[in-house]
Amino acid sequence: MISRVLSAELAEHAGQRVKVAGWVHRRRLLKSVSFLIVRDRTGLTQAVCSGELPVEESVVEVTGTVTLSPQAPGGVELTSPELAVLAEPAKAPPFDLYRPTVPAALPTILDHAPVALRHPALRAPFEIAAASVAGFRSALDGLGFTEIHTPKIVASATESGADVFGIDYFGRPAYLAQSPQFYKQAMVGVFERVYEVGPVFRAEPHDTARHLAQYTSLDAELGFVRDHRDVMSVLRETLAGMTEEVRRRAAPALTTLGLTPPEVPEEIPSIHFTEAQEMTGEDELDLSPAQERWLSEWARREHGSEFLFVTGYPMAKRPFYTSPDPGRPGHSNGFDLLFRGLELVTGGQRLHRYEDYLAVLGERTEPYEGYLSAFAHGMPPHGGFAIGLERWTSRLTGAANVRSATLFPRDLHRLAP
Amino acid sequence: MISRVLSAELAEHAGQRVKVAGWVHRRRLLKSVSFLIVRDRTGLTQAVCSGELPVEESVVEVTGTVTLSPQAPGGVELTSPELAVLAEPAKAPPFDLYRPTVPAALPTILDHAPVALRHPALRAPFEIAAASVAGFRSALDGLGFTEIHTPKIVASATESGADVFGIDYFGRPAYLAQSPQFYKQAMVGVFERVYEVGPVFRAEPHDTARHLAQYTSLDAELGFVRDHRDVMSVLRETLAGMTEEVRRRAAPALTTLGLTPPEVPEEIPSIHFTEAQEMTGEDELDLSPAQERWLSEWARREHGSEFLFVTGYPMAKRPFYTSPDPGRPGHSNGFDLLFRGLELVTGGQRLHRYEDYLAVLGERTEPYEGYLSAFAHGMPPHGGFAIGLERWTSRLTGAANVRSATLFPRDLHRLAP
Repeated sequence: MISRVLSAELAEHAGQRVKVAGWVHRRRLLKSVSFLIVRDRTGLTQAVCSGELPVEESVVEVTGTVTLSPQAPGGVELTSPELAVLAEPAKAPPFDLYRPTVPAALPTILDHAPVALRHPALRAPFEIAAASVAGFRSALDGLGFTEIHTPKIVASATESGADVFGIDYFGRPAYLAQSPQFYKQAMVGVFERVYEVGPVFRAEPHDTARHLAQYTSLDAELGFVRDHRDVMSVLRETLAGMTEEVRRRAAPALTTLGLTPPEVPEEIPSIHFTEAQEMTGEDELDLSPAQERWLSEWARREHGSEFLFVTGYPMAKRPFYTSPDPGRPGHSNGFDLLFRGLELVTGGQRLHRYEDYLAVLGERTEPYEGYLSAFAHGMPPHGGFAIGLERWTSRLTGAANVRSATLFPRDLHRLAP
Repeated sequence: MISRVLSAELAEHAGQRVKVAGWVHRRRLLKSVSFLIVRDRTGLTQAVCSGELPVEESVVEVTGTVTLSPQAPGGVELTSPELAVLAEPAKAPPFDLYRPTVPAALPTILDHAPVALRHPALRAPFEIAAASVAGFRSALDGLGFTEIHTPKIVASATESGADVFGIDYFGRPAYLAQSPQFYKQAMVGVFERVYEVGPVFRAEPHDTARHLAQYTSLDAELGFVRDHRDVMSVLRETLAGMTEEVRRRAAPALTTLGLTPPEVPEEIPSIHFTEAQEMTGEDELDLSPAQERWLSEWARREHGSEFLFVTGYPMAKRPFYTSPDPGRPGHSNGFDLLFRGLELVTGGQRLHRYEDYLAVLGERTEPYEGYLSAFAHGMPPHGGFAIGLERWTSRLTGAANVRSATLFPRDLHRLAP
């Protein structure tokens, strides 16, 4: 039996008889000859056939002789083919998957995701996402982090209170976790340095191009930091690991989309919130989307960097567990990372002393009992960050909508497929 | 400023002045001298002190001279120490974390997880789990798989119907996904080979030592298989990758627990369901726990293997998407993998033709619409498997209860911490 060869490996087998398997990407019927283009996970193979050919998206095995052909994809094609059809499609795709440019709008793509994502240009972002996550993990593994898995069902909607999904948990009310924040902090007490890649849930009532009801959060948290600057330094290493792995693992996807991943500078430029406000001439407690775009453009122009840290956000706009900046009253050791005009990462140093938590929570300690117990038993200065995977991928690929970087998005309107 | 050195690296710095940071694991106060044992993520460091010492679980930095001392852990200790306390515990731990054997029962450990898991013997299973997941991924990455992230909120409780958690999804009913089964199958049409590591949810009404309401499922699915045997072969590679990575990354945890990971044989022995029934003298549609234990013991005795495949389970006991065995009516191309007396993995070949799905589902196609669309557009023969991470880790560590391999278990009674 001849074993299968992948499209990308075909040229290594010139002159040999091999088997290629995949989907019929396209048929081209000429007068005296016909071409069958087969798509597998590594690319396309052309087979020179004659007569009737199976329709597009048929699943086929083609056994043939690998023959040099400068015009064929990859410089080789299969001649004298024998064809076996493994499965025939019962329906035609919602649009032609072989056209270089996707001839469909986002709702059509999302409605038909299982078939639409077969289009190489629509599949590519997910190959970039997979490589990014691999880079996130390898960077943190190299820095002594331990991967953890924490509960997605929680007893109280503690972190923000709003935008939370309720569950019937054996007849009791419970909620879907909005982040692994409390658990990753508690686990700093056990492992010192932890990360988690997992789903988080936001009952986001706004229908925008950048919000999802479920997204994949890349979370990290580390102990024994001096302050937020040590966290930013680990984040810089992590981003460098992510882009490196994208280059290494997702080269074909980058080619398909015509992309080059960003350079992560040795030192990502950083600006304090108050300076950012002065430069942009506004005076609010947060940065507007327009300010974020302006600052990103400024960092690119002045520092040649597509990344920019904004540090020292006002305490009033950061969650209760944020550590204040001891040198600047009202400001925090919390930061955001802007990437290509958009906030990509939120992070910072956290409070670590039990008495500080009691002070900020006041009377409201009861729903935080399990969380607080970690601090009652001695916790080091620590901090961390969270990267939204789909947001990262959509920025990297230049997608206008985060849903183009989500296999099966969930939002206000969409619960299927 | 002296930068931090980890306990495990201390011996490399003999004669130097270094800083160690961690938790006070134990104080030992003798007449003329006192010892402070500091615990960090890599082990213990002894410092020779005098006078009052901070209580256990205080977070400290100790700067001292690395001095050879055969009696100390790692053969070195810190002398002439300067001590800085970063945080003091407000409460005493529920039990002494420095005792070699854990002096507490499981409910106490689970109730106090943020501090209890600091005990090296209780932390070790999670280091083994993290290494196992890394091995799962690296094995599959090496075989051309793509990592995916699929929705955990679904529109209908389709796979089994029972044991599902209901959610209020923007006023509409929805459910927590019991597995990524349908999504991973659909994504075979896009990536050919996919895996996902993520939470799955079972509203499991039984309070047993092996069931959880949320667990971490290691899922894989691959296309262009001959039949279930190709899936079993990939599973064998995956298990070998997992044990290899446990040996490589979790050596200290293995030492702490006194464990050796199992050998994964080049070929895992396999037995057909009907033979298994004949050997154990029973005649049901499934294997009982007692039969599973007997068969595992038999595989160890006869084949020197801690793993055993049971193939050809009756169609009546497998899910509707299971491919039948064309050679044995009533039997499937589904398998289980037994490991140390327990079912660890379920897998098999799936149906891949649209018409086969229409035939098995009959009138019930409506809730499966999104799922079926993948098959309507041409799908190759495929199959896959799912490994329960916590079950794997608890078998590997010899834990009597799967909760010992779960950071924060969720079950019928437990929703916190």
